[in-house]
Amino acid sequence: MLRYLTAGESHGPGLVAIVEGMPSGVEVTTDGIAEQLARRRLGHGRGNRMKLEKDELEILGGVRFGKTLGSPVAVVVRNTEWPRWQKDMSPDPGGEATRTLTTPRPGHADLVGMQKYDTHDARDILERASARETAARTVVGYLARQVLAALDVEVLSHVVAIGSVEAPAGNVPERGSLDRIDEDPVRCADPETSAAMVEEVDRAKSDRDTLGGIIEVVVHGLPPGVGSHVHWDRRLDAKLAEAVLSVQAMKGVEIGDGFAQARSRGSVAHDEIVPEGDETFARASNRAGGTEGGMTTGAPLRVRAAMKPISTVMRPLRTVDVVTKEPDVAFRERSDVSAVPRAGVVLEQVVAVTVANELLRMLGGDTLGDVVASLERYRARLDEF
Amino acid sequence: MLRYLTAGESHGPGLVAIVEGMPSGVEVTTDGIAEQLARRRLGHGRGNRMKLEKDELEILGGVRFGKTLGSPVAVVVRNTEWPRWQKDMSPDPGGEATRTLTTPRPGHADLVGMQKYDTHDARDILERASARETAARTVVGYLARQVLAALDVEVLSHVVAIGSVEAPAGNVPERGSLDRIDEDPVRCADPETSAAMVEEVDRAKSDRDTLGGIIEVVVHGLPPGVGSHVHWDRRLDAKLAEAVLSVQAMKGVEIGDGFAQARSRGSVAHDEIVPEGDETFARASNRAGGTEGGMTTGAPLRVRAAMKPISTVMRPLRTVDVVTKEPDVAFRERSDVSAVPRAGVVLEQVVAVTVANELLRMLGGDTLGDVVASLERYRARLDEF
Amino acid sequence: MLRYLTAGESHGPGLVAIVEGMPSGVEVTTDGIAEQLARRRLGHGRGNRMKLEKDELEILGGVRFGKTLGSPVAVVVRNTEWPRWQKDMSPDPGGEATRTLTTPRPGHADLVGMQKYDTHDARDILERASARETAARTVVGYLARQVLAALDVEVLSHVVAIGSVEAPAGNVPERGSLDRIDEDPVRCADPETSAAMVEEVDRAKSDRDTLGGIIEVVVHGLPPGVGSHVHWDRRLDAKLAEAVLSVQAMKGVEIGDGFAQARSRGSVAHDEIVPEGDETFARASNRAGGTEGGMTTGAPLRVRAAMKPISTVMRPLRTVDVVTKEPDVAFRERSDVSAVPRAGVVLEQVVAVTVANELLRMLGGDTLGDVVASLERYRARLDEF
Amino acid sequence: MLRYLTAGESHGPGLVAIVEGMPSGVEVTTDGIAEQLARRRLGHGRGNRMKLEKDELEILGGVRFGKTLGSPVAVVVRNTEWPRWQKDMSPDPGGEATRTLTTPRPGHADLVGMQKYDTHDARDILERASARETAARTVVGYLARQVLAALDVEVLSHVVAIGSVEAPAGNVPERGSLDRIDEDPVRCADPETSAAMVEEVDRAKSDRDTLGGIIEVVVHGLPPGVGSHVHWDRRLDAKLAEAVLSVQAMKGVEIGDGFAQARSRGSVAHDEIVPEGDETFARASNRAGGTEGGMTTGAPLRVRAAMKPISTVMRPLRTVDVVTKEPDVAFRERSDVSAVPRAGVVLEQVVAVTVANELLRMLGGDTLGDVVASLERYRARLDEF
Repeated sequence: MLRYLTAGESHGPGLVAIVEGMPSGVEVTTDGIAEQLARRRLGHGRGNRMKLEKDELEILGGVRFGKTLGSPVAVVVRNTEWPRWQKDMSPDPGGEATRTLTTPRPGHADLVGMQKYDTHDARDILERASARETAARTVVGYLARQVLAALDVEVLSHVVAIGSVEAPAGNVPERGSLDRIDEDPVRCADPETSAAMVEEVDRAKSDRDTLGGIIEVVVHGLPPGVGSHVHWDRRLDAKLAEAVLSVQAMKGVEIGDGFAQARSRGSVAHDEIVPEGDETFARASNRAGGTEGGMTTGAPLRVRAAMKPISTVMRPLRTVDVVTKEPDVAFRERSDVSAVPRAGVVLEQVVAVTVANELLRMLGGDTLGDVVASLERYRARLDEF
Repeated sequence: MLRYLTAGESHGPGLVAIVEGMPSGVEVTTDGIAEQLARRRLGHGRGNRMKLEKDELEILGGVRFGKTLGSPVAVVVRNTEWPRWQKDMSPDPGGEATRTLTTPRPGHADLVGMQKYDTHDARDILERASARETAARTVVGYLARQVLAALDVEVLSHVVAIGSVEAPAGNVPERGSLDRIDEDPVRCADPETSAAMVEEVDRAKSDRDTLGGIIEVVVHGLPPGVGSHVHWDRRLDAKLAEAVLSVQAMKGVEIGDGFAQARSRGSVAHDEIVPEGDETFARASNRAGGTEGGMTTGAPLRVRAAMKPISTVMRPLRTVDVVTKEPDVAFRERSDVSAVPRAGVVLEQVVAVTVANELLRMLGGDTLGDVVASLERYRARLDEF
Repeated sequence: MLRYLTAGESHGPGLVAIVEGMPSGVEVTTDGIAEQLARRRLGHGRGNRMKLEKDELEILGGVRFGKTLGSPVAVVVRNTEWPRWQKDMSPDPGGEATRTLTTPRPGHADLVGMQKYDTHDARDILERASARETAARTVVGYLARQVLAALDVEVLSHVVAIGSVEAPAGNVPERGSLDRIDEDPVRCADPETSAAMVEEVDRAKSDRDTLGGIIEVVVHGLPPGVGSHVHWDRRLDAKLAEAVLSVQAMKGVEIGDGFAQARSRGSVAHDEIVPEGDETFARASNRAGGTEGGMTTGAPLRVRAAMKPISTVMRPLRTVDVVTKEPDVAFRERSDVSAVPRAGVVLEQVVAVTVANELLRMLGGDTLGDVVASLERYRARLDEF
Repeated sequence: MLRYLTAGESHGPGLVAIVEGMPSGVEVTTDGIAEQLARRRLGHGRGNRMKLEKDELEILGGVRFGKTLGSPVAVVVRNTEWPRWQKDMSPDPGGEATRTLTTPRPGHADLVGMQKYDTHDARDILERASARETAARTVVGYLARQVLAALDVEVLSHVVAIGSVEAPAGNVPERGSLDRIDEDPVRCADPETSAAMVEEVDRAKSDRDTLGGIIEVVVHGLPPGVGSHVHWDRRLDAKLAEAVLSVQAMKGVEIGDGFAQARSRGSVAHDEIVPEGDETFARASNRAGGTEGGMTTGAPLRVRAAMKPISTVMRPLRTVDVVTKEPDVAFRERSDVSAVPRAGVVLEQVVAVTVANELLRMLGGDTLGDVVASLERYRARLDEF
């Protein structure tokens, strides 16, 4: 099983992740990590900030000659703008805060964070609360994906809504469609909807406003029985919900049809079990999104996240200065119209980590070979069920 | 901080919960537990099953003369029907399975659980997967609430949708309204909507169908800063989402306006900070549902859960017999038209545990007096911020 | 992997353990548990207290027809003296403390516990701090042993010192010798030493004094590679040390030759690797006690614990009354001359839980069949190394 | 509470530690870390290896202007020899293993590690198993010490035995004596014994042999009640034992008189409670080493560790080549005669982390000010007990 910690401030020297529990023999390369990190820059409606964030990577431990050793894997993602921030973000005494921020932004950790950790400079808070932190989690996600790939499990995401534009229901991208989705300007799997979404983004941009949206993560290839009904904190749905709502700006999550299912009747809400070809226990539908009783059913896993609009809006929001205690407007940093397209990439990572972790718990194994053999044996057992 | 485990099968001798980490000096009584458990039986549209489930309680440890000792608290909730089930559910060898179930119900843990744990009797799975388990979690919730009460924190819930009937937005029940809500047949805070919900339930009943719905849990009195932005798994939103989706039949969760917020623009999605009377940092709205950056803001916490319709529908669903491998219809157990009203009681408990836990992590303290004093000191520090 | 909590006060209604993470299909019976619990009463030099402690057992969950279900296992060990204690230990208000204790015993949790949890009745503390709690851990140990037995792993213990009498070094009991050891009055594997130990106990008894000692736990049949060097808290030595020092009255632990090894030179402190018969990587000795680099080597695991003399001595110790603040003598409860013989039984349990847990982490598996097959595969892989 | 992970191989690019859970406002500087790391190089009888290990440090996150932010703290300790090892230890594909090791050293993780993680190059194992990893834990220890210093808690260590030379019992170094001990060539607090130890080391050196020893860590200033008797894994003794035996080459641990206490009688094994001056509950002795019932008593905490002799002896040990399967002698790396003096520095760190962690659990607090105030309040409560 995986344990991981991340650290690092947005404009500090770098971000770092340590992942403990990787089996040995998993292919891991700097290029592979870079590729996932680059995917975080995808998407129409982005400001110019992400372009500055080229990632300079270093694997510090746990990997030798492109394979994991079984020891903790550590990766540093350098901040290439560090020289410009060094004075303001110096870890050691002697720096100088030239960019002190005292007007907390509504919708951010700014105000509450300052109260909790007792500081009057919002920079002390926002630097860690920033979504830049997900770069470290993307590293973790890459490691999880490398395990999943060996188990023939594939994780992808697509945008199903931006602002008021929503893709038609029921379109679940197949295996192998990730490249195509990544090429779409808003990472929508439906070309027609994509065009409407681009227009929605452009409209918001001209209004100097921002947009939220809904993203769906799909996992293909999971065997039945990942997660467990036996204890509340072993339910896969619960772990997925935790992972999704731990991502900055996410305010909702649903498995399968989720909220729509809550509004439907029981007679049309479940997935009947029917024989189909070779499969004795096939399903007539996948409304549940691939889980029953907190476990995967073998159908594609579908997890949806509701992302609120970026709160750094171009139009200022009212706030109160924490030093003067006078009403003011919130400070503004560069921002995108919508982070929804690239947020899917981050959601893929946290979902990948969650399912990889539960698979490793279930399958055991010190080497990747052990893990693969254990899954084969499990699948053979199910074939004989 | 609290750790807890629960055990017990639905028709076994009883359910049990152990909770480690309670401070000493917290008032805990059998009557208090019984009261929370009784609330699980509330609601229109229930079948006759819950009536059978009278709870026989025993506190096994951690409490003396009505106060916690600081040691783990253990409570057993006896199954009063045990004599009728003893043969079928005997822990020791020598019993006899007279109620073997081989036709798994879609929408339940039945099929996947049997595959995972390698059994051809669905009873081995459903007995633990059953929502009856939440009685044990209600015990844990009661303990959490007793801590919260000392900190002047109040947890309540109300039904905001059943099937297609939805309460008007924006009505957040105040402190002290729980008794009134509990008296409503569907636990809806809005009398007019309540009447419509009752009709909806009756309609579904006459169609022999079932209904899902949406429940909102509200927490009053939390200080700002519960949870943290510093690490993904310390975000309160994430912990709340995990807790909510760990409850049987929940398929979605949102904090504040959640999915609605995802469809709105940034200019109208955030809660501006404005001075108001004595309060320097009051909020003009509470769209975020009481959290920013993974921490409470001090506004009421609002968490919504989407509950799917009960899957034990009166109209049988198609399935496959796990022994004969032939198509069949799923077996049926007694069921309610809608479990939505009483599910709110369970959701209150898991939310109470989550926030109590984060408060205890933040405040420390071996005795309830320590915890209370620590919160007073924290509030005093915030007053001077 | 196993998680467990225990609860219950020494003279409360009962003790209870919940164990989460057991694979399905493990044989578990009330009789089997009773047998392990009965072993806790073994040994010469015991007072009359243990005789009163007949155990009344109930499996509350996780087991059906003598096999685990995969769900959490819960067992209650009733206090048969409860009627005599009910008034003093009533969980609910309305009891009466007739046996309030205000003169804390040195060497016990009494004084510090009262300070920490803010009570002036030592009973509030000692009831939980008592070694009676290990009955609950014995239940957990039994469950672990049932898993280990299926993996052909055997856990036993023997007393190597009582007071000043020490068994000759180097005698490691073989597989299958547990019954013989249990029959010895002091659970010593060496008959001659046993006789001397009995004399030592009798001498102390006539002096109204108590004795400590040293116990060794031996585990046969572990494969190489249980535990890991990759992270500090995955080292088996560390987990074993934690487990051993968590047992009441234990003040020291060593793996293999431990402290003796610290006094030897490097040239004679290690276990050379030499081919022997079929075994390519046999060892010329086992000074290390079966671990290298925090992992098992495949040689018998040897863990030794230093147990201090029972502190409830017949000769009173000086203390201070917590109410009057006046010097006094510590109150006395019935006690044994030496708990060393039966403490071995408890140490077996905590060691069994520790190694079973690490094996389950390494092997994975939802059913006992999965676990066994995984170990077979691992052993086959090692054969080809 | 603190969570931490470390990563990095001995000759890889560097070691890294991430520590989550630090309160804000704690003084942390690169110089402070460097000072603790330098202490790891102390001691007579060292080979030339440590001199090569100059530490190049970088704080990557969690600290700004010399104070913690409350966010995870990450520190990288660079390997200054990296250029010479880059080819052999390259994380990315394309390196070349010029120093493959196939003759595992007895007493190391080499053989078992290779079997477990399925590699035939011992370098894949020993690089992580090496005691060099404790540099990362020293960083964590430094952070813990900075918290402890604010609470007026002081951690120090001294060598009480090297090989057959043992310091007279009963000498517990006072507060403020760490500098003096660090100046001693073998870090022994007793000058006479120190001289004998130096001779012992020199003798072993001329015999080309190595020596183990015993180290005592002492913690001054802990309040009563750190740790708890209420659950096995909350006992401070257990956590300390885990921490100590997680350090490379440690094979035993005892609290207070430990094994000696096991050999004594109950009448002389405990610490009587007697009024003394202002102190109502003073102790006549400290045989228990500062804990009772798994909690601190307020007396100095004394933890002793048994360290085995370094296994990389100059005189080769028999082994078997894992490739040829032929008998051979173990490869040798540069080594010291005794690592005992500097191991004390590492043991201080793991003990500091353990007690800091338990204090933080008990006291709560988001800022250092909160933690300090909470302890003051706790002490005031005890004064009124």
